[in-house]
Amino acid sequence: MINDFVYDIPVRVYFGRDQLKNLGTELKKYGTRVLMTYGCGSIKRMGLYDRVVKEIKDAGLELYELSGIAPNPRIDSVRQGAQMCKEHHIDVLLAVGGGSTIDATKFMAAGACVDHDPWDFLDLQKWSPIERALPIVSILTLAATGSEMDSGGVISNPETHDKIGRLAPAMLPKASFLDPTNTFTVSAYQTACGAADMMSHIIEVYFNMNQDLYMLDCFMEGLMKTIIRYAPIAMREPDNYEARANLMWTSSWAINGFVDGGKQQAWSCHPMEHELSAYYDITHGLGLAILTPRWMEYCLDETTVSKYVQFGVNVFGIDPALEPMDIAHQAIDRLSDFLFGTLQLKRTLPEVGIDETHFAVMARKSVNGGTLAGFKPLQQHDVEAIYRMCMK
Amino acid sequence: MINDFVYDIPVRVYFGRDQLKNLGTELKKYGTRVLMTYGCGSIKRMGLYDRVVKEIKDAGLELYELSGIAPNPRIDSVRQGAQMCKEHHIDVLLAVGGGSTIDATKFMAAGACVDHDPWDFLDLQKWSPIERALPIVSILTLAATGSEMDSGGVISNPETHDKIGRLAPAMLPKASFLDPTNTFTVSAYQTACGAADMMSHIIEVYFNMNQDLYMLDCFMEGLMKTIIRYAPIAMREPDNYEARANLMWTSSWAINGFVDGGKQQAWSCHPMEHELSAYYDITHGLGLAILTPRWMEYCLDETTVSKYVQFGVNVFGIDPALEPMDIAHQAIDRLSDFLFGTLQLKRTLPEVGIDETHFAVMARKSVNGGTLAGFKPLQQHDVEAIYRMCMK
Repeated sequence: MINDFVYDIPVRVYFGRDQLKNLGTELKKYGTRVLMTYGCGSIKRMGLYDRVVKEIKDAGLELYELSGIAPNPRIDSVRQGAQMCKEHHIDVLLAVGGGSTIDATKFMAAGACVDHDPWDFLDLQKWSPIERALPIVSILTLAATGSEMDSGGVISNPETHDKIGRLAPAMLPKASFLDPTNTFTVSAYQTACGAADMMSHIIEVYFNMNQDLYMLDCFMEGLMKTIIRYAPIAMREPDNYEARANLMWTSSWAINGFVDGGKQQAWSCHPMEHELSAYYDITHGLGLAILTPRWMEYCLDETTVSKYVQFGVNVFGIDPALEPMDIAHQAIDRLSDFLFGTLQLKRTLPEVGIDETHFAVMARKSVNGGTLAGFKPLQQHDVEAIYRMCMK
Repeated sequence: MINDFVYDIPVRVYFGRDQLKNLGTELKKYGTRVLMTYGCGSIKRMGLYDRVVKEIKDAGLELYELSGIAPNPRIDSVRQGAQMCKEHHIDVLLAVGGGSTIDATKFMAAGACVDHDPWDFLDLQKWSPIERALPIVSILTLAATGSEMDSGGVISNPETHDKIGRLAPAMLPKASFLDPTNTFTVSAYQTACGAADMMSHIIEVYFNMNQDLYMLDCFMEGLMKTIIRYAPIAMREPDNYEARANLMWTSSWAINGFVDGGKQQAWSCHPMEHELSAYYDITHGLGLAILTPRWMEYCLDETTVSKYVQFGVNVFGIDPALEPMDIAHQAIDRLSDFLFGTLQLKRTLPEVGIDETHFAVMARKSVNGGTLAGFKPLQQHDVEAIYRMCMK
């Protein structure tokens, strides 16, 4: 059964080296008072900050700034941004950074339009509606989360150990500037984490036993092959434009909604990982890398093996004449080799400082007290078992 | 060199069996006076006409109709539609049909906003600007041209033997309804022509010696594999939903602009084919099927062979260990087998009633008196040679 769906991605993407010249015109569509948001200042070191400020000034716009948005962005930044929007009557938000900055900015833009605490958007008990948001433009500096072309974001609340994601069409960026040269300074490690994040976005959708649109499966296989081909090149040669460009455009298409098509949406590794980074503040892509092969191993059985075969044959070129279970195991091994060998990511939870202390509570929270209705339905004890598989 | 590009496809697509319930709401966004355009009445036989009229009436909208839009749509229909829009103060156009109906409707919508003859948009001497158009919504009944998600159209002028295409963002549909069941009644022959058309749209972009975004090449290979897999199924089993759904969504993505990415745009077979159908009114997809393998043969040499190898290995699974030229020739043979064997399309121009009479003038018009700057630059004598290759 191919489900009905609505495709609607009206984000305008300016892709390439010489696109910031369009920034002023794009921002002006929405008004004159701009709140620019960014993280730790790396955009200053790379010269992007000066360039952006110049474009904004040249366009005669009024600039406000909010910096210090952390990886795994916190609700405090969101509160601060929403407050600034109200105080300064901001017309448009300009997020300059990676997924964390863009995610936080989305909830600032929504928070600016309501009277309540922005955490109410994410509090599972309240889940306040997100009907409006100020317009958002983004300048991407890290190929990973796809936030530049989707309507979602994930926010952490360190006080409650919560890390919660939410989608809302109102938060979709109006435009995003994707200049691969802005990722030349991304470290090999962060490049690897970004690649693992994108890979996971695709795997979460690809591994699905509902009938698919074959054309979308082909597309996802192409995206995965792109990541496998170019992530190691970008790690070795950080200023390889071709590699950075392919990774950047792949990050957007891995999660902008196109690949979902008529599928039942049901993610597994992301909810499991959100608990890890909520409790331990590890890099999201790293947590996903550790979990994904174990989750695949755990879900493999006679009823699911066909999807692993498709994956192994079409993505890794494994011989289709082998036994299905052999192909499946080889496919998981090949993925592990990519994540822990080629990308040089840590293989186990202890290596990133995580032990079994919180497994029970994290597993309970990840299934939200019930069942995680993913590729294979998972209950708390399943998630605990998968966490334990990550111990060695 | 990967060129800069702007991605901007704000068409909302309602995909699936049960989406027409949203038609009224979608149309109402643009006003109350609807001009519905369609072709020869097949939409009445299949019951779609009644369903659409009911949705429009139930939404309280005022309905006007223009029928009789022909395949290879004529400028006369466009003139008539533009006139009706002006007379009846139409707010939104609803095209119900295949590419011909949607193409013609686009130029009606543009023509409604100007005082001059709509042919001035297409007359190469005048090329009047297309700055505005009335809003367009489409309901697709044939998977082929991709007009449902792009900003282009092709119009014929039988008096001057001209068949000319033009793109303009203003003509992009606001929304398109893609219900695969609306293509269940498409004949095996028209299904085959549609498949050949889509295949050509991809080949025109894929065969390009500029450096590409690999992720887009992978996507195009996936689209071609989708067509090869599902076109014969849809021909054999016209009501196979999976086949029709894959072909339908592929038709949109083959030409909506995504695959172009950073490429130099330069089409070859389409301009050559437009002359054939301008002079002989043959089905566009059929003309493309006849031309494409000959064009590929003509352009194959040591400088271009690598692209044929990529195509042969990734789309047809030809052994990459063979000699490049062998792979290239095998790839062309496999494509010919698909077009003339599997799809059962006519192989030569004489079989569709075309002889050498107009080759010189058609070739001259297709290169517009100069050079066709495609995959390999073609001059008038090259095009004539390719036409002659199609004689047997």
